[in-house]
Amino acid sequence: MAGFKVRSVLVTGSNRGIGLEFIHQFLKSPNPPEKIFATCRDPESPQSQELKNLSTKNPNVIVIPLDTTELASVNASVKEVEKHLKGKQLDLLINNAGIQTPVTLDSQTSEDMLHVYNVNVVGPMLVTQAFHPLLKRAEGLGNSGVVHISALLGSLTKVPVLFSAFPVISYRCSKAALNMLSRCQAEGYKQDGIISIAIHPGWVQTNLGGDQAPLTTEASVSSMMKIISTLNKDQSGTFVDLEGKILPW
Amino acid sequence: MAGFKVRSVLVTGSNRGIGLEFIHQFLKSPNPPEKIFATCRDPESPQSQELKNLSTKNPNVIVIPLDTTELASVNASVKEVEKHLKGKQLDLLINNAGIQTPVTLDSQTSEDMLHVYNVNVVGPMLVTQAFHPLLKRAEGLGNSGVVHISALLGSLTKVPVLFSAFPVISYRCSKAALNMLSRCQAEGYKQDGIISIAIHPGWVQTNLGGDQAPLTTEASVSSMMKIISTLNKDQSGTFVDLEGKILPW
Repeated sequence: MAGFKVRSVLVTGSNRGIGLEFIHQFLKSPNPPEKIFATCRDPESPQSQELKNLSTKNPNVIVIPLDTTELASVNASVKEVEKHLKGKQLDLLINNAGIQTPVTLDSQTSEDMLHVYNVNVVGPMLVTQAFHPLLKRAEGLGNSGVVHISALLGSLTKVPVLFSAFPVISYRCSKAALNMLSRCQAEGYKQDGIISIAIHPGWVQTNLGGDQAPLTTEASVSSMMKIISTLNKDQSGTFVDLEGKILPW
Repeated sequence: MAGFKVRSVLVTGSNRGIGLEFIHQFLKSPNPPEKIFATCRDPESPQSQELKNLSTKNPNVIVIPLDTTELASVNASVKEVEKHLKGKQLDLLINNAGIQTPVTLDSQTSEDMLHVYNVNVVGPMLVTQAFHPLLKRAEGLGNSGVVHISALLGSLTKVPVLFSAFPVISYRCSKAALNMLSRCQAEGYKQDGIISIAIHPGWVQTNLGGDQAPLTTEASVSSMMKIISTLNKDQSGTFVDLEGKILPW
C-alpha cells in the first residue's frame, strides 16, 4: 500500500527546535516535498538565521512570517501559500509552535493560563481553520493531514505518574485541550479527507524541554517522520507516541 | 461510615441555574450547612433577585460578589468568607460558573476560545488557588472538597459519538482542560486533605443547556448532592456522572 505522500507541507514555529528539525529532515527525505512552507513569527530575527540559510540553499523551502495567534497574520500566510500552490492541495500541516512555562498550582497566574492557551490551542485552531480550504482533498489525490505536536503531560490518565515532577498547570491544561481540538478536527474534517493526529514528541532537548531531556530533536523528528510517512485515516483522532502507539487520553 | 460533612460551602455562579438550585437544596438538606456562601458576579442585578430573597429569609445564606476571572474580586471574596468562618475550614467549594457558546469548527473565533477558557478554566483555577488556605484540613476535621461542574462534552473518548450534534469547540476544549485542572488539584492538594472531583451534571434545562434538555435542574442537583454526601478521597481526581460512575477522559 502506498504511504502518505507529502508534496507540500507547512510547519509552524520552524525557526528552531522540533520545527527547524522537521525542515531539515523533509529536505533530506528520499522524496523531498516540492514546497516546504517554513513559518515562524519573525523570519528577520537573528533566531531565524539558520532557517533563512536553509531557504537560500533550497528553493523548495519558502519562509513565511506567521504569528499563529493573530488572525490577520494567519490569513496573510494563507494567501502567500496559495500563490505557491497554484491550485494544488496542501498535503500536510504541522502545528508545532508551542510554549511551556514552569508554574505550579500555587504560582499559576491567569495571564499565563491565557497566554499558554492562546499559543498552544488557539493558534492551532486558527491555523487549521484558515488552511482548511487548502487541505481539503483535491480530486484524484489522497488524504491530507494535520499533525498536532502535543505532549504526554496533556494525558489526563498519566497525571498521577507525572504530576509531582512536572506540575506545569497551564501547559497540561493546554495540551489536554489541544488533544480535544485535534479529535474534533478529526471528526469534523473526515468528510474532506483530512486526517488529524496528536503526537507526543518525547522529552526533547529543546528550549522547551531543557538540558535534562533524554532525546535529541533529530531522534524525535526522525520517529515522527516515520509516523507521517504511513499516516492513514484509521489513525485520525488518535494521540500517539513516537512508535505510533496509542496513548491514553 | 460517616459521610462527607458540609458545614460550610461556597458556590460560584449561584444566582441561577444549577448554582441557584444548589443553594436551594443545601437549605433543604437534613443538616443544612452553617454557612452557605452564595457567590455571583453581580448580586445587585435583577437576575440575582431570587438569590437575594433566599438570603433575606435564611441567615446562613451569605451572598458575596465574585467575578471568578478577576483576581482582585477573588481575593476580596476570600477576605469576606474568612470573616464569617472565623478560623474554621471551608468544607466544600463548588466551581459551577461556566459558559457555552454555539460555535463550530468553521465559526470558532480566537476571542471566543479565550473568553470561554477564561470563565470555564481560569476562573476555577484562580478561585481554588485563593481558597486553598481555607480548604486545607483543619486539625481533627475530615477532608474538604472541590467540585468542578464539568461536562461529558469534555470527554475526549466520547467525541466520535457526540461531535456532530454538539461541536461547541471552545466549550469542549475548556472542559477537557478543566478535567485536567481538577486532576492536577487532586494530586497537588492530596497532602492537604482536599478532594477534587469533576462531575458531569447531565444535560440540564438551564440557559446553558437549553429547552431541549431532558433533565430538570432539581433532578441534576439532587443527584449531585448524593455524590457530595458520600465524597471520599478514593474518588479524588475522577470524572463522574450523576450516578457517581466513572466517565472516560
